[in-house]
Amino acid sequence: MFSLHPQLEKDTFPVAELTLSRLLLMNNKNFPWLILVPRKQNLKEIIDLRTDDRTILMEEICLASEQLRALFKPDKINVASLGNLVPQLHIHVIARYLTDSAWPAPVWGTPCEPYDEVVRDAILAKLKIRLRF
Amino acid sequence: MFSLHPQLEKDTFPVAELTLSRLLLMNNKNFPWLILVPRKQNLKEIIDLRTDDRTILMEEICLASEQLRALFKPDKINVASLGNLVPQLHIHVIARYLTDSAWPAPVWGTPCEPYDEVVRDAILAKLKIRLRF
Repeated sequence: MFSLHPQLEKDTFPVAELTLSRLLLMNNKNFPWLILVPRKQNLKEIIDLRTDDRTILMEEICLASEQLRALFKPDKINVASLGNLVPQLHIHVIARYLTDSAWPAPVWGTPCEPYDEVVRDAILAKLKIRLRF
Repeated sequence: MFSLHPQLEKDTFPVAELTLSRLLLMNNKNFPWLILVPRKQNLKEIIDLRTDDRTILMEEICLASEQLRALFKPDKINVASLGNLVPQLHIHVIARYLTDSAWPAPVWGTPCEPYDEVVRDAILAKLKIRLRF
């Protein structure tokens, strides 16, 4: 019985259900920002996953990274599992630019500006088409 | 021909050569902090790795996490591939505590205090014994 942490529910839009993880789009127009949440109970760390699920998670991190690279042509991709504030295991995959508002610092703790609906829907549609969802 | 980025060379101590990556200890006594650097040329992103190397990298991230958990009993483990400042692909694996100086923020950009030699040597020795190096 998987349920998404309320904070992730509040901050994101669903994109796709991958083999292991739910793929989410962070509602922050400052950075193209995906989040992967493995659909298993009581996961806090990557090492809480079984070995085969760890391999699938790496594949899904790379799938998310490839979508960001193809759609947004970033200068750098940041990948991170932190969970200091939201304890449910989730992995950030973020497109970064030399010109973005936080560069070269990490994005966590920087201001969050929600998407305009039209822009958000266009991004979600493109991601779903690419992922065949 | 692999060579470690000069900034990583300056900031870390070598721990072990794993199958794919060089394992390093960050010279910062504020956080037990390991770094994995895959020994391949011209890697910037995790998705620059071949599929089989991605799987090995995930195993090595978990190996590093397990060492930190066993030796330091952290409240949380932070895992991240950022590379905004140092372009050579490297993965941070960091032991975090509810009581550490940066909690709950990420550690990047916080003050770096070098280890006392005796403490550093004890940590390196424990890691090498656990990893059979």
